[in-house]
Amino acid sequence: MTGFDRHPPASAYIVAVGSELLTPSRQDTNSLFLTARLNEIGIEVCGKAVVGDERETLAATLRHALEHADLVILTGGLGPTEDDVTREVVAGELGLALEEDGAAVERLRARFTARRMTMPEINRRQALVPRGATVLPNPNGTAPGLWLEAGERLVILLPGPPLELQPIFEAVVAERLRPRTRGLRVWRRELRVTGRTESQVDELAQPLYSRWTSGACPIATTILATFGQIELHLSVRAATSDEAAASLGPAVSALVEVLAPAVYSVDGRSLEQVVGDLLRERRASIAVAESCTGGLVTSRLTDVPGSSDYVERGVVTYSNRAKTDLLGVPEALIAEHGAVSEAVAVAMAAGIRQRACVEVGVGVTGIAGPTGGTADKPVGTVAIAVSRSAGHRSRRFLFVGRREQVKFQASQAALDMVRRWLLEDVSPVA
Amino acid sequence: MTGFDRHPPASAYIVAVGSELLTPSRQDTNSLFLTARLNEIGIEVCGKAVVGDERETLAATLRHALEHADLVILTGGLGPTEDDVTREVVAGELGLALEEDGAAVERLRARFTARRMTMPEINRRQALVPRGATVLPNPNGTAPGLWLEAGERLVILLPGPPLELQPIFEAVVAERLRPRTRGLRVWRRELRVTGRTESQVDELAQPLYSRWTSGACPIATTILATFGQIELHLSVRAATSDEAAASLGPAVSALVEVLAPAVYSVDGRSLEQVVGDLLRERRASIAVAESCTGGLVTSRLTDVPGSSDYVERGVVTYSNRAKTDLLGVPEALIAEHGAVSEAVAVAMAAGIRQRACVEVGVGVTGIAGPTGGTADKPVGTVAIAVSRSAGHRSRRFLFVGRREQVKFQASQAALDMVRRWLLEDVSPVA
Repeated sequence: MTGFDRHPPASAYIVAVGSELLTPSRQDTNSLFLTARLNEIGIEVCGKAVVGDERETLAATLRHALEHADLVILTGGLGPTEDDVTREVVAGELGLALEEDGAAVERLRARFTARRMTMPEINRRQALVPRGATVLPNPNGTAPGLWLEAGERLVILLPGPPLELQPIFEAVVAERLRPRTRGLRVWRRELRVTGRTESQVDELAQPLYSRWTSGACPIATTILATFGQIELHLSVRAATSDEAAASLGPAVSALVEVLAPAVYSVDGRSLEQVVGDLLRERRASIAVAESCTGGLVTSRLTDVPGSSDYVERGVVTYSNRAKTDLLGVPEALIAEHGAVSEAVAVAMAAGIRQRACVEVGVGVTGIAGPTGGTADKPVGTVAIAVSRSAGHRSRRFLFVGRREQVKFQASQAALDMVRRWLLEDVSPVA
Repeated sequence: MTGFDRHPPASAYIVAVGSELLTPSRQDTNSLFLTARLNEIGIEVCGKAVVGDERETLAATLRHALEHADLVILTGGLGPTEDDVTREVVAGELGLALEEDGAAVERLRARFTARRMTMPEINRRQALVPRGATVLPNPNGTAPGLWLEAGERLVILLPGPPLELQPIFEAVVAERLRPRTRGLRVWRRELRVTGRTESQVDELAQPLYSRWTSGACPIATTILATFGQIELHLSVRAATSDEAAASLGPAVSALVEVLAPAVYSVDGRSLEQVVGDLLRERRASIAVAESCTGGLVTSRLTDVPGSSDYVERGVVTYSNRAKTDLLGVPEALIAEHGAVSEAVAVAMAAGIRQRACVEVGVGVTGIAGPTGGTADKPVGTVAIAVSRSAGHRSRRFLFVGRREQVKFQASQAALDMVRRWLLEDVSPVA
C-alpha cells in the first residue's frame, strides 16, 4: 500500500502550461472538463494556474501546487519541441531521472509508420519518462500522459489538446482514481434570486449558513451576484445522492423559506424557463410590448425551446407613433404622463393583451441611457406593467448601470412580475 | 519618485478570486480583458491563477505572484460579505492596517440613497482600505478598486463583475499605468468577418500571414471563430503608434482586399453598431419583423446608444395570426409556402416597412429548434428578407448548432444583409 492509497486525494490543483494561454484571445478550457470529472468522484479543485512555456515559473508553480493539494494535474507542454518543458520540470522538482521508455518509443514509431511516415528523431523526447512513472497511452496523439506517485502526493501530466486529454483522463478516472477514492463525491444545489440586493440576501441567509458549516456533513456556500440576479451555490461531499439530499434538501428549503418569493429557481432553470413553465401549466399565452428593452424580454422568452406554444407575439414600440399604431396607446396619455410612465406601461400591456387575445400582456417603457434622462426621470427609470383579464399591476423602477445592464435588469424585473402574479393563481387556469 | 516609478512594470500576474470559478461551469474571463489592455502598454502576463474564497490559499498565491511579477492584479472577492476576503488578505500580506475610508463610505451611502434605499451596515466593509492605498471609484457598483504600491511591487484590486471591472481598469491604464511605462507596446488591430467559414477565411489569409511573420517588424496573427462570426487579430510590438501603423495598416488593407465584403469592421465596432452608423449616415430608419429570432435582431440594434434615432419599431410574430394581423402577411401565402419560406419573409419585411413608414424593413422566419424541423426544412432553416423602396432581397440559410446559436447566426445574417445593401448606395440618401 502506497502513501497515496492510505490517503485518497480530496483536493486537486490544475496547472495549464502554454504561453498561448497567456494571450488575450486564448483560454484554458481543459480545467472545466477536469473539474467536472474530479467533482464526480469527490475531489474538489482548490486552485488553478496558467503558466507559460518557461522552466523557472513552472517549477515554482508546481511547488506551490504540491503544497496545497493532494493531486496536481498539469496539462500541455508535452510536445516534441524545446518549448515543451513540462516533463523535465516535473522530473526535476520531484528529483527523478528522465529515462526513455522503450514501449513508448515503439508506440510512437508505430503511430508514424501507420501514417507511412518516418518518426522524426525529435519525437523521442515524447517517450522520456521520469523514473517510476506510469505511461498513459494517448490514442489520439503523440504525447502520452504520465502518472506519478510521489509520497502522499499524486501528479498527472496530460497533453493539452482537449481531444487527446479527455480520453486519457476518462481512463485515469475509471481505472485509477475512482477505485481509490472513498466513494464521496461533490453534490451541488443552486438557488437563483431576483429582486433583492446581494447584501439583503446575505443578511437573511448568513444566520443559516453558520448552522450548516459546523454540522457533521458541512455545506459549503457561495453567493454570486450580477446585475438583476443573485445565485446561491450550496455543495456537500457525500457518498450517495440520498445522503446529499438529506443534507442539501433541508438547507434549500430553509433558504427558500427566508427568501421567498424572491427565489425563482432551485433547479438551475433560468427565469425565462420558469415563466414559460408557469404559462404552460396554466395553458396561458403571453404577448410583450417593449420600448427601452428593445425586444430583450421577448428574445429571452423565446430562447426556451417550445416557447412558440405560449409566446403569441411581441412588439418593440420605440417611437410614440408605434405605441399608438400597434398598441392603441392614446396620444393624449403619452402627452400627459410622458412615454416613460406607469400609465403608459399599463396602456401598452393592456393594448398588447387585447390585440393579441392572450392571458398575459406585458408593457415595458424606460430610459436605458446613456442619454435621455431628466431630473424627474433619470437614466435607469423604467415603468413596467402586467395586464391580465383580472386587472393590471404596475411598478416604477430605478436601475443603475450601463445601457445593457439597465436593459437586462428591466427584462428581469418584467419576467419576475409575471412570475409572481402567475404563482398567486389558486389553481391553474384551465 | 517611488520604486515603482524607477522600475516601470514589465510583467503582470493575475489572480482571480472566487470559489465559483473553481466549479465546472464558471470561468475567469476578466483575465482576457486585462491581458489585452496590459499588452497594449507593453506589459506581458507571466502567469494567472484562480483561487477560492479562502484566506490561506489566497495569501500563498499572492506571495507566489509577488515573487514572479512586478504587478499583481487581483479580481473579485471585494463584496460586502464574510466570503469576500481579498481586501483583508492583501492588507495582511503587505503588513498594512485596514482602515475605513470616509470618502468611500460617503460614495457608497450616496449610491444607495440615489436608489431610495438605506445602506446596509454590512456594506461598510467595502469602504475598508489598506493604509496608503488609493481608492479607485467604481461607477457601476458598490465595490471600489484599490491601488497599492509596495516597494517596487504594484498591487491592484478590482471587483469581479466585468462591467464594473472594465471601466475601473480602463481608467487605471489611462491615468496611472500608461504614463509610467516606456518602450515597446503591443499594438493590435482586429478584423471582424461574417458570412464565411473559418477555413475559408484561413485559406485566403494564410498566404498573407507568412509574408508578415518573417519581416523586420513581425506581425502575430490569431484567428478566433465562433458561430456566425470570425475575428482576425493582428499584433505588433512597436515604440510608437506611427511605427505600428506602418506595419499593421497595410496588413489590414491586404486582408480587407482578399476578404471584402465579408469584413464588416476593422475598428472594433459590433455589427449592430456598423448597421446603425450606416443608417444614421443615410438618415434612414429601420423596422424589424422577427419570428424565429424572437426579438434578438431588434434587441441587438437597440443595444447601441442613440438607436432610438433610427429604430422605429420591431414586431415578434411568433404565431401565424400575428403575422397576418401585424404585418398583413396573407394567410394564403403562409398556407402555400409555409411560415418558414422566402415568400413569407419578403411579405414580413415589406409589411413592416410599409406599416412603419421606414426606409428598411427586415423579415426573419425560421426553425430555431430543437424541434419543429422537417425533411424539407430541417432545424436551422431560416429565411431572411430585406425590403426597401427600391425592391427586396431574400435568402434561405441553413444554420447548425443549438437554439441560441441558430438565433444568433440568423440575427447576424439579417444584420449583414442590411449592411451589404446599404453599402451599395452610391451616395447617402438625403
